[in-house]
Amino acid sequence: MRNILLTMTYDGSKFHGWQIQNNAVSVQEVFQKALFQVLGKPADIKGCSRTDSGVHANMYCVSFHTDHRIPVERIAPAVNNYLPPSIAVLSAKEVPMDFHARYSCKGKEYIYKIWNSEIRNPFLHGYALHYWYQLDLDAMNEAGSHLIGCHDFTSFCTLDNREKGDFHRTIKEFNICRKDEMVVLTVEADGFLYNMVRIIVGTMLYVSKGKIAPGDIPEIIKAENRKKAGPTAPPEGLYLNRVFY
Amino acid sequence: MRNILLTMTYDGSKFHGWQIQNNAVSVQEVFQKALFQVLGKPADIKGCSRTDSGVHANMYCVSFHTDHRIPVERIAPAVNNYLPPSIAVLSAKEVPMDFHARYSCKGKEYIYKIWNSEIRNPFLHGYALHYWYQLDLDAMNEAGSHLIGCHDFTSFCTLDNREKGDFHRTIKEFNICRKDEMVVLTVEADGFLYNMVRIIVGTMLYVSKGKIAPGDIPEIIKAENRKKAGPTAPPEGLYLNRVFY
Repeated sequence: MRNILLTMTYDGSKFHGWQIQNNAVSVQEVFQKALFQVLGKPADIKGCSRTDSGVHANMYCVSFHTDHRIPVERIAPAVNNYLPPSIAVLSAKEVPMDFHARYSCKGKEYIYKIWNSEIRNPFLHGYALHYWYQLDLDAMNEAGSHLIGCHDFTSFCTLDNREKGDFHRTIKEFNICRKDEMVVLTVEADGFLYNMVRIIVGTMLYVSKGKIAPGDIPEIIKAENRKKAGPTAPPEGLYLNRVFY
Repeated sequence: MRNILLTMTYDGSKFHGWQIQNNAVSVQEVFQKALFQVLGKPADIKGCSRTDSGVHANMYCVSFHTDHRIPVERIAPAVNNYLPPSIAVLSAKEVPMDFHARYSCKGKEYIYKIWNSEIRNPFLHGYALHYWYQLDLDAMNEAGSHLIGCHDFTSFCTLDNREKGDFHRTIKEFNICRKDEMVVLTVEADGFLYNMVRIIVGTMLYVSKGKIAPGDIPEIIKAENRKKAGPTAPPEGLYLNRVFY
């Protein structure tokens, strides 16, 4: 038996999220079928996170145990052979048997892309949020600085049966920068609650609009109340960008 | 009566080229319908060029006469209202009555994107050619330098009933550069023959492979024979990038 860690990337606009579900095509389902073609039997795949419908991954990790003897450097090209163009395996390596793509994860980085222009960009439909009004990056960065550190992020979490227990997470990095019309928000944390990045983005858009002041953020965190933060931004701008082990 | 010049951009992967045809959705058809919604009657639209199925436009120009009194600055947002996300009008301006988007054009610039990596990029499927083997940019740039100037480009033209008369064109600029895995070829000319850029790209790929030497290019031009040049590269990497008047 070996434990294999695969790194992949996928265009989330073509899928209903990572996780297998009825009546909708998920990345996991398509990936599992391709892996089955290579290994000749089903593998129990551990994904590094559940990404929502329409969310993209520049980097996504999965691990699985196998007794197949395929050389590790052959795995990526072999699996890619059976995958559609919307998913690509970037690399594969052997890891210790107790490694788990989700539980061994030490942190993740997400980016959120915003096309900030009065005119839409046809090439970014489904790949960035189109936002008409000029964004106030200074205010957004000031607001974001209050998110850094270890906090209870209940106010930035969609409550459903997914989230149990501790709502503390540590945000290590936060910044928003612009290159011409493209604004990119980057946030790194030891872990993320359900919809956390999208609610952070929605809150930042409220900050830019003046509906929330940058100095209100500590109070919003302290409230531990989802209603105090801004709306959940749409999924199409969100990319899982890096996974740390 | 006024003559209006519109600048637009479109994602060619969603269309069967610019020109109206039976049984396939063209950019022109979709654009004409949107413009009809705004003007209340059909307009005779002149497009700056015929782009093939799957070819993109970062900039594409159309002109049309109208007696409608809509202020010129309202035209772009009004037409965008009726267009799908894959097409966007960037701007509109009034031009002299004898201006014609195609015949008044003094030159065009195309770019061709190549994803040069062993691993495909899911986000570039339909938006760049995926080319596995390491490209030899020095050889390609040397070969391309022989294309610059005024030549009969019969060898770089698909012969059909579209092309008549003079096959001389003047290439003003040619370069190929790389940023990480992305290789971009840029070519500017006073005009282009049918499939000319795609045949130039196919020829450059042959140069990189060593099937054609950079020094062979003058001979290939002189032959005035399509069979002497390389194959026609696929459309997905091609973008009409700039139109000069």
